[in-house]
Amino acid sequence: MTTDQYLAELGQQFRVDAVRATSHAASGHATSSMSAADLMAVLLARYLRYDFDWPDHPGNDHLILSKGHASPLLYAAYKAAGVISDEELLTFRDHGSRLEGHPTPRLPWVDVATGSLGQGLPIGVGIALAGQRLEQAPYRVWVLCGDSELAEGAVWEAFEHAGYEKLSNLTAIVDVNRLGQRGPTRHEWDLDAYARRMGAFGWHTIEVDGHDPAAIDAAYGEALDVTDRPAVVLARTMKGRGVAAVQDREGMHGKPVPDAEEAVAELGGVRDLRVDVERPAAVTAPRQTHGVRADLPRYTVGDKVATRNAYGEALAAVGSARQDVVALDGEVSDSTRSEFFAKAHPDRFFECYIAEQELVASAVGMQVRGWTPFVSTFAAFFTRAHDFVRMASVSRAGLNLAGSHAGVAIGEDGPSQMGLEDLAMFRSLHGSTVLYPCDANQTARLVAAMADGAGGVRYLRTSRGASPVIYGPDEEFPVGGSKLLRSSAEDRLTIVAAGVTVHEALAAADELAADGVAVRVLDMYSIKPVDAHALLDAADRTGCLLTVEDHRSQGGLGDAVLDAFTDGRAVPRLIRLAVDTMPGSATPAEQLRDAGIDAAAIVAAVRRYVGASAGADVAA
Amino acid sequence: MTTDQYLAELGQQFRVDAVRATSHAASGHATSSMSAADLMAVLLARYLRYDFDWPDHPGNDHLILSKGHASPLLYAAYKAAGVISDEELLTFRDHGSRLEGHPTPRLPWVDVATGSLGQGLPIGVGIALAGQRLEQAPYRVWVLCGDSELAEGAVWEAFEHAGYEKLSNLTAIVDVNRLGQRGPTRHEWDLDAYARRMGAFGWHTIEVDGHDPAAIDAAYGEALDVTDRPAVVLARTMKGRGVAAVQDREGMHGKPVPDAEEAVAELGGVRDLRVDVERPAAVTAPRQTHGVRADLPRYTVGDKVATRNAYGEALAAVGSARQDVVALDGEVSDSTRSEFFAKAHPDRFFECYIAEQELVASAVGMQVRGWTPFVSTFAAFFTRAHDFVRMASVSRAGLNLAGSHAGVAIGEDGPSQMGLEDLAMFRSLHGSTVLYPCDANQTARLVAAMADGAGGVRYLRTSRGASPVIYGPDEEFPVGGSKLLRSSAEDRLTIVAAGVTVHEALAAADELAADGVAVRVLDMYSIKPVDAHALLDAADRTGCLLTVEDHRSQGGLGDAVLDAFTDGRAVPRLIRLAVDTMPGSATPAEQLRDAGIDAAAIVAAVRRYVGASAGADVAA
Repeated sequence: MTTDQYLAELGQQFRVDAVRATSHAASGHATSSMSAADLMAVLLARYLRYDFDWPDHPGNDHLILSKGHASPLLYAAYKAAGVISDEELLTFRDHGSRLEGHPTPRLPWVDVATGSLGQGLPIGVGIALAGQRLEQAPYRVWVLCGDSELAEGAVWEAFEHAGYEKLSNLTAIVDVNRLGQRGPTRHEWDLDAYARRMGAFGWHTIEVDGHDPAAIDAAYGEALDVTDRPAVVLARTMKGRGVAAVQDREGMHGKPVPDAEEAVAELGGVRDLRVDVERPAAVTAPRQTHGVRADLPRYTVGDKVATRNAYGEALAAVGSARQDVVALDGEVSDSTRSEFFAKAHPDRFFECYIAEQELVASAVGMQVRGWTPFVSTFAAFFTRAHDFVRMASVSRAGLNLAGSHAGVAIGEDGPSQMGLEDLAMFRSLHGSTVLYPCDANQTARLVAAMADGAGGVRYLRTSRGASPVIYGPDEEFPVGGSKLLRSSAEDRLTIVAAGVTVHEALAAADELAADGVAVRVLDMYSIKPVDAHALLDAADRTGCLLTVEDHRSQGGLGDAVLDAFTDGRAVPRLIRLAVDTMPGSATPAEQLRDAGIDAAAIVAAVRRYVGASAGADVAA
Repeated sequence: MTTDQYLAELGQQFRVDAVRATSHAASGHATSSMSAADLMAVLLARYLRYDFDWPDHPGNDHLILSKGHASPLLYAAYKAAGVISDEELLTFRDHGSRLEGHPTPRLPWVDVATGSLGQGLPIGVGIALAGQRLEQAPYRVWVLCGDSELAEGAVWEAFEHAGYEKLSNLTAIVDVNRLGQRGPTRHEWDLDAYARRMGAFGWHTIEVDGHDPAAIDAAYGEALDVTDRPAVVLARTMKGRGVAAVQDREGMHGKPVPDAEEAVAELGGVRDLRVDVERPAAVTAPRQTHGVRADLPRYTVGDKVATRNAYGEALAAVGSARQDVVALDGEVSDSTRSEFFAKAHPDRFFECYIAEQELVASAVGMQVRGWTPFVSTFAAFFTRAHDFVRMASVSRAGLNLAGSHAGVAIGEDGPSQMGLEDLAMFRSLHGSTVLYPCDANQTARLVAAMADGAGGVRYLRTSRGASPVIYGPDEEFPVGGSKLLRSSAEDRLTIVAAGVTVHEALAAADELAADGVAVRVLDMYSIKPVDAHALLDAADRTGCLLTVEDHRSQGGLGDAVLDAFTDGRAVPRLIRLAVDTMPGSATPAEQLRDAGIDAAAIVAAVRRYVGASAGADVAA
């Protein structure tokens, strides 16, 4: 057993290393690291069970640095654990270094990227949920939070969800150093203010002097003893603790100490203590069943089926084939149709209520444990979790999201419920995949493909209303592909559609054909990556692409087709039909008409183009 | 004074009208309206002070239906107040009707659109803040919430902020009807569970039977008597109250009652009670000072100034000229430089801590009162408030947002802090304006233009690092314009840049010119609306547009230029340079180089294009 004196020395070592690393980088968060140094020292030396040589050990505890800007402290701990060298520590924030300004999973011991505040605890809830409900595994989740980030609503979604689920395997540690970036926090050192709130949310609360190793040790021990609810250790600390020039002073956030040499001396000099971190118990990992073929639902061509229904049915089928698939929903499973999964696999379904940030964060946490999560809510309401999916992309998390009720086609409920910006949001994420099926068999195949995906955010856009099944159940729909639905040698242009507008495009093409105007129709179900080959071919053969989408003009299908043409090659003519109005209430058909994206609008646009093409000066 | 019997009858009338309206529409939320009918009846008849003939009366109370799906109840109340007819009531959800599925400000008595849950209370906090801190006006803010939406973190940001600011002019009413959309809420009828939480956040809590008019009256009276903190009335109610077929039953959310005629009979038949709503006291409206010319800061060409600094200085200047301008920041005012405004105008600066949803919502609330808000945080962290800005666009709210630390150019802090998806997000909003200045004088002018804007979300993207001032202080920068920085008759292509990449483009152009390759450079500071005229001219004269941006490839500048070419006309060749990597830590220059958006990358791309153009088959 380590002595308290050793713990105090270890805390000082962390401070020294944080000072040295930030001083090397000439940037970074020295003072935010120093306040939490003793909290980290006791955790690492006495409580964390972690095999640093085997980061994927299923029995490992999970340590999440929610206050990600205190990365120098985390890296100092890694050094003390023996997995990074002092030389590497001093590459902090260098070009190419794994030791980034905020931690990311480029380091094998980091589960998720942090740095956008208020995300660590919500994700920790997801990891703890997996441990308690899915795995019954003895690992513990430790989340080191800052006090400033407690202002984030997402944190209170986490407190609520963890309290409700009685996640006794979760411990939050709050470094209450009183100072945010630009000045004091709301509650400064009023630990009681925090304790009242968290207690009301069903947590066991412990208040402690965050610079007293023995007291911290007792607090962590007390947290472990609580078996019917999550526990939070509220630690009163000082920002910049140990260096008089910065200690508890405003204006010292996010920068090195003014005189590193002096500070190191004041902290007692450089040390090289090593911590032999306790190894975890042997645990069986969750079963990996990637690639097992699901017995997908089969829909009959000509029947009318909503793609959201196909989503729910396909997901239930994938869940039957694969025990690693879990589903989470934001209290709208009857609408998104994830209820089909919930009924078939209640043990692997998570009701997250109307808290979209915690909804997505829970899924991020579960994929850390190797589970394959599918998250569903209305397409519109994923905007609530934008920052979480953004950070998931930084984490290279493998995440499947399904947004229902896309576009004006939902009808009467009006604009608050219409996902009209979702394609723009998901396309802009690094490494994302964006899928938008128009029929039930296509939807089922894409759900199966999503389940087989690896890292990266995958988004599926589903529709509320029933639409005709146009593809047979054995058709294949590779990600990055498209389907050519109408074509001839005389096509005057190509209609590029996806989802509900595919059916409008087909109706328009038929009407135009009856009139002697041949057009191609391309079902661009894969919005990202887009099928460049098909688009280049269509451009080559028809010279004009008319995109039609139930989404805003910006960032959706109309922009996506451009991905095939931005390398300096010749670009075809482009016509874009999209939703540029502010819809009210109306029937789905009226909505499509008002927005100018129905068959009649397509026909009119094609006629205008063909008429103009017949004129003299268009080729100019 | 109305009798309690009258109140009970009025509640029944609201239920009847909700049944009739939803039955007419064959959709909509009857049962969610019926639970809150008595709460609304007592409010309308005895507490609300509102001149329905003068919706802009500065003394009017504000009533926000946070549970926006209960719109039939709101419309029933409007009918009782005499401002809509029974005929109009029965246009609910019809095409063209003002009575949309969820309320929007198309109705003059609706302050803000609701329907995305958990937004009404945060916005109410903003209206109450304006009343308490800016206007010292006696109006009261009433927010009718559902119980399901209390799961949203944004609601807890609101509870925290209102409690901290002691907003005694704010009353939340929670319709605790136990049932969400797909089933029971977490806490069902455990009013104490809610009271504990809200009490811990500094609110006065009152628990009441939500179907007892006398008890409700007493509760509202108690709320009014609390003068040192906000109050919340927690009302136990039954969803579908009064109609046995639906009352307190699952599976009845969001639909009409099965038999409207029977339900109306059960509720005692159609009534036509009118309420003479109490008029407000005379109050002076906040001073409108639109159009007053600010004494903007003037920067010297050749100096190096960060656009975020120019933002802060210009905002302070605009605030000196105009008393209606307010600024709000998410605890990063030292970074966004809104601290300059805070120092100059402390009475009109609002510290919102790290709670971006409440930050934006507060501003939405303040513009309801006629204030001109500027909101700042890191560009990346506006993603946290995406759903709030989306709903602000539905509300036609006039909102100015400034996102600092855009792009990889921030350097060492890494991807969590880099706004790389913000242009895509803001471009996709209906009626939005997106601006991205490259120099200090340009920034100052655009800040002034934003202050003069009317409805709509306006976004300004600023940069962390200093960049050369390239425009004189008297240059004009109209929204929707651009600046041609280099041009000649021999230009081989046009480099379209904005923000930091303008300087890279100029360096590239100079290097290419020295090499005998002439290129145009267009500073596209207005990303939306984009300067179509300039783009068409550039396309016409040079045949190729090379876009270069410190943003993801999707949804930003590269897509924006297309807005000028999607009407079937000939499209120029396009080359897109954008951030397709996942950055780590590095210096700003290394980041631009790694992402392939610096001068060297531009030069290389131009040389490739010019080399290929010299070949035989490119014109094909």
